[in-house]
Amino acid sequence: MQALTVRPGSAGSLEVRDVADPGPEYGDLLVQGLALGVCGTDREIADGEFGAAPPGEDHLVLGHESLGRVLEAPEGSEFSPGDLVAGVVRRPDPEPCGACARGQFDMCRNGRYTERGIKELHGYGSRLWRVESDYAIRLDPSLEQAGVLMEPTSVVAKAWDQIEKVGNRSWFDPQRVLITGAGPIGLLAAMLGVQRGIEVHVLDLATEGVKPDLVRALGGEYHSDPVADVLERLKPDIVIEATGAAQVVVPTLGGTSAYGITCLTGVSASGRRTPVDAGALNRGIVLENDVVIGSVNANFEHYRAAADGLAAADLEWLHRLITRTVPLERAAEAFDLHDDDVKVVLDLT
Amino acid sequence: MQALTVRPGSAGSLEVRDVADPGPEYGDLLVQGLALGVCGTDREIADGEFGAAPPGEDHLVLGHESLGRVLEAPEGSEFSPGDLVAGVVRRPDPEPCGACARGQFDMCRNGRYTERGIKELHGYGSRLWRVESDYAIRLDPSLEQAGVLMEPTSVVAKAWDQIEKVGNRSWFDPQRVLITGAGPIGLLAAMLGVQRGIEVHVLDLATEGVKPDLVRALGGEYHSDPVADVLERLKPDIVIEATGAAQVVVPTLGGTSAYGITCLTGVSASGRRTPVDAGALNRGIVLENDVVIGSVNANFEHYRAAADGLAAADLEWLHRLITRTVPLERAAEAFDLHDDDVKVVLDLT
Repeated sequence: MQALTVRPGSAGSLEVRDVADPGPEYGDLLVQGLALGVCGTDREIADGEFGAAPPGEDHLVLGHESLGRVLEAPEGSEFSPGDLVAGVVRRPDPEPCGACARGQFDMCRNGRYTERGIKELHGYGSRLWRVESDYAIRLDPSLEQAGVLMEPTSVVAKAWDQIEKVGNRSWFDPQRVLITGAGPIGLLAAMLGVQRGIEVHVLDLATEGVKPDLVRALGGEYHSDPVADVLERLKPDIVIEATGAAQVVVPTLGGTSAYGITCLTGVSASGRRTPVDAGALNRGIVLENDVVIGSVNANFEHYRAAADGLAAADLEWLHRLITRTVPLERAAEAFDLHDDDVKVVLDLT
Repeated sequence: MQALTVRPGSAGSLEVRDVADPGPEYGDLLVQGLALGVCGTDREIADGEFGAAPPGEDHLVLGHESLGRVLEAPEGSEFSPGDLVAGVVRRPDPEPCGACARGQFDMCRNGRYTERGIKELHGYGSRLWRVESDYAIRLDPSLEQAGVLMEPTSVVAKAWDQIEKVGNRSWFDPQRVLITGAGPIGLLAAMLGVQRGIEVHVLDLATEGVKPDLVRALGGEYHSDPVADVLERLKPDIVIEATGAAQVVVPTLGGTSAYGITCLTGVSASGRRTPVDAGALNRGIVLENDVVIGSVNANFEHYRAAADGLAAADLEWLHRLITRTVPLERAAEAFDLHDDDVKVVLDLT
């Protein structure tokens, strides 16, 4: 069976090659891979900067943004052949921490979780894959290829869930969100913001093309001027930061209205120091009761919220997020970013 | 009647002088001022950097850390002459924002609140003062002069309340807190941490003297090595930052264990840029689901929690926090900080 593999830690080791069919230890559902989304984490792994193969193996089957069709399901399971499904990424350690023991593996405390296609478990980047029925999410069949947006939508559903839980520690009635970055995470965050009835603003560098078009098609406002100016002008109640770029992140910290929330979701490179007025940053956060939340990964609750969000979305708009589809044989092309890329997807069929 | 006044915006204008007795517009309780705590905000106002007089007036009676004894209370009120009381600092605007309308004036959204001794309302730094019974808190009579710690304790009770509300968005079982700064806020935060049964660590610059002694007397551990080293060694679940010093604040952001909370309470000076690896800071916060909370001021709920916390504390320990008491006539001396000062108090009797 063909799969997309890397040798974690080795830049340039990405290749499509034959591997053994997935064994039953990977779950009771046998699934035909339909599509695989490629994201920044995959590119980091392909660059040798991240990721770990299963213990005792050299290679990792890449891929965590999954979409497939069930081929075989055990009798009495909730799934049937033909179901459109996505697989959950993270698994708790067999000796779970307090959070993992409660199904909150996205909040794992001891770091001993594993992740399909990232950390010690093979991913979903293969013609066939397996998943445990407990870790599979059924998708609305009308979604078709847009179902590959399930995993990034779950990440964004978690971010909104965090914002709402933290916001509700006191009276909370947010009117306006600014989302920095119009990649898949930013645009899906905008979609869930519109579904909540909040005034949505999205900021990115592009001045024209698919990103501004997609924001406007949602009913949002698009900005490409400097983030500090946009924050000053809008004074949003919420910022969802999805660039991970330090020069964007810093102004968003405390850059909201009073009692504002900045939710950080971008994973940035480290090692570069820039001058920051940390006194002003601290003072602004304290005197306005602002909060900064880091949010990563997602648990079942967020996958279910994501499935609902995708089912409620405009299908044509979702399909427009997928700006390139590359056949598995030419997978390397999906790892080169083009200017107007939003989500690049591998076709596994 | 003698009062401690300033002309807001004028450095060096602090003086003790005769002013008119407080009018009934300041409340239905007439109170004999017993003591007044002096804090960083008072020093900022005395330096002309902060504060506002009541509309149409040049002078502001300073003081928001109050302690007094009721002289006159209206018939049928909850208060009687002789009661030990402290006054709440903030008042909502007559046209309140959504938070102020719900009694959450500490989370005011529109900034139109007023504050006794800080913003547009005379303070409690006078021989006699008035307060509305609705904004007075009765104190355990055994507290005596330690009752002057009510206001800073309310600020710390709010910080803990925020930490717990935000922490409880998912499974939360904090074992260890690091408090940076062993001033009154830091030490009172340590006291409330010990009352919660959490392992308490406090960091400050002093290597000996009253601050380490007070931390150890609580059963806490005292540290004076660099904050980054202490964070790395302890990996606390919670940090309460109470120095407001940029070089301490920055390492605490995301410097906790996974799912950690850093609560910022210090009001720092702005205008100085220092090099910060903002990419690493962002990455650490995101990948560990960390949260940074700014917390300022307090509402009735926090004053009540503070009254309970003070009543449960060791009285002798509380009295040791008050390291200097200066008579009102020599008020200026209370505004000069000595090395081993924790809380400096003016005697109003």
